[in-house]
Amino acid sequence: MPRVVELAGGVGGAKLADGLLAEVGADLTVIVNSGDDLVLHGLAIWPDHDTVAYTLAGLDDAVRGWGLANETWTVMDRLAELDEEPWFRLGDRDLATHLWRTGRLRDGARPTVVAIELARRLGIAATVLPMTDDEVRTEVRTDDGWLEFQEYFVHRRQAPDVREVRFRGASEASTTPEVIAALEAAGLIVVAPSNPIVSIAPILAIGGIVGAIAAARRRDVPVVAVSGIVGGRALKGPADRMLASLGHESSALGVARLYAELADGFVLDTVDAASRPGIEGLGLATLMTDTVMTDDASRARLAAEVVRFGRSLHPVHA
Amino acid sequence: MPRVVELAGGVGGAKLADGLLAEVGADLTVIVNSGDDLVLHGLAIWPDHDTVAYTLAGLDDAVRGWGLANETWTVMDRLAELDEEPWFRLGDRDLATHLWRTGRLRDGARPTVVAIELARRLGIAATVLPMTDDEVRTEVRTDDGWLEFQEYFVHRRQAPDVREVRFRGASEASTTPEVIAALEAAGLIVVAPSNPIVSIAPILAIGGIVGAIAAARRRDVPVVAVSGIVGGRALKGPADRMLASLGHESSALGVARLYAELADGFVLDTVDAASRPGIEGLGLATLMTDTVMTDDASRARLAAEVVRFGRSLHPVHA
Repeated sequence: MPRVVELAGGVGGAKLADGLLAEVGADLTVIVNSGDDLVLHGLAIWPDHDTVAYTLAGLDDAVRGWGLANETWTVMDRLAELDEEPWFRLGDRDLATHLWRTGRLRDGARPTVVAIELARRLGIAATVLPMTDDEVRTEVRTDDGWLEFQEYFVHRRQAPDVREVRFRGASEASTTPEVIAALEAAGLIVVAPSNPIVSIAPILAIGGIVGAIAAARRRDVPVVAVSGIVGGRALKGPADRMLASLGHESSALGVARLYAELADGFVLDTVDAASRPGIEGLGLATLMTDTVMTDDASRARLAAEVVRFGRSLHPVHA
Repeated sequence: MPRVVELAGGVGGAKLADGLLAEVGADLTVIVNSGDDLVLHGLAIWPDHDTVAYTLAGLDDAVRGWGLANETWTVMDRLAELDEEPWFRLGDRDLATHLWRTGRLRDGARPTVVAIELARRLGIAATVLPMTDDEVRTEVRTDDGWLEFQEYFVHRRQAPDVREVRFRGASEASTTPEVIAALEAAGLIVVAPSNPIVSIAPILAIGGIVGAIAAARRRDVPVVAVSGIVGGRALKGPADRMLASLGHESSALGVARLYAELADGFVLDTVDAASRPGIEGLGLATLMTDTVMTDDASRARLAAEVVRFGRSLHPVHA
């Protein structure tokens, strides 16, 4: 089996990562978006990282879609008694992660090192790496002005239309030796069915990552992107509305256009068969299958298909 | 009733404050030691402040002696699963205080403002003020070298002998307009039966406080100190051993010597009757009574006696 590197945001990336873990085990490295990270009450909160890590550890709450299973809310309930209701709710057990991580970061440990240590403590066989150790913050411009990502995503429940997106700090940020090493060792690179605008684009905006992916393709390592838009709708989150309000097409083809330069293969859902010719017209090989991951079996099945599809590809270098 | 200002550390100061609250209500201001404060997991922890605040709010755990009643430990239990057992245990409900406070401080609010806001949220009728808005850290020198206070107090359980004490940052720190205003409005100043070395001395080390107390005395405002040493032993904590290892006498007389310049009156326990002549020989008026506060009634009774004693005194200015 090839060493697989997945670029991932939150839930969709986590589900496919879980399938890839079943397929390639410790040969999986997930590079997670850290543009959604925030400091709240002094604590370092890494939403996409933790969704991936908890899912890979089998500790995630599948129903809620974020945080830990068997969670309690004593701290937040008490916080609500002290103040207005917190808009970003942190479970008691989840808080332990944030306390531990914040302590390690204050000790001076690099975020990457902290992520590796946490994965070991959570018993994760795969490697989960932040895209950078530098601070990058995704912000979206709405009709109310620029908002921090979580302010838009959680507090305003993605209600405002997104007019523009920026990744503050990205132009000065560089990726890590660990990410570069993972891409150098990769036999297959997978772009998760995450939001292309605010989950994948920040990763690609970090100095060194696009170059390392291009170098991998020159070594005949294929890049496969999986559509997070199925039947014109995002399975989770605001990607569909965001694509539309930013002038893209909210469809598998619209997503494929964003990845046309980056990827060799594209995975679309069978409901999007009509998009297939257009996607192939972009120069992308296609795999059409059921991409909706409803349970462990469908995660593993999709991951296996993605790996098989990827291994069949040979990058054509521009 | 006079406006009362109490200088206080943790448990002993909190109990007397509770009695004073019963006696003078909203006319009580407690100035708390912040030299024991620490940042843990990125959170601002104020041990003495919170002991006083929780006690005045009627939320304290009287049996444990710190933290909140009806506490749960989900976060710490999970933290122990992630890492070694935390030596500084924070209850779930207590954590809400630290999260809320850290958030407010990160917003740029002064510690004093944050303390006032918290008191309102906790429903405290009295005012609780940190001694300073500046960072001051009590450190103790042991045979293992200098230790941060909580490292000595909690982690090492006060086992090492204390050879020297310093208040890092105190010489550059100044007190707040709120503390000065409280001392200017005071009709009586009470030094709590707290540890004179590490609870009261840091307060007195802050620029402006000793001067404001002296000015009050020139206005005929008496200062009454209450011994935290009864029968040669501290009722709580390591004050007795600390006094001895620093070359003081671990007795009511030993405490009185430390306050001889500051105070007009001194309250000692009836079991220390033999110390009375020595204390009066220092120029201090004395009140001898039962100083051990075992319940609400004994807190209120001692506070009432302290206030009555104080009102009988007229400072003799050196």
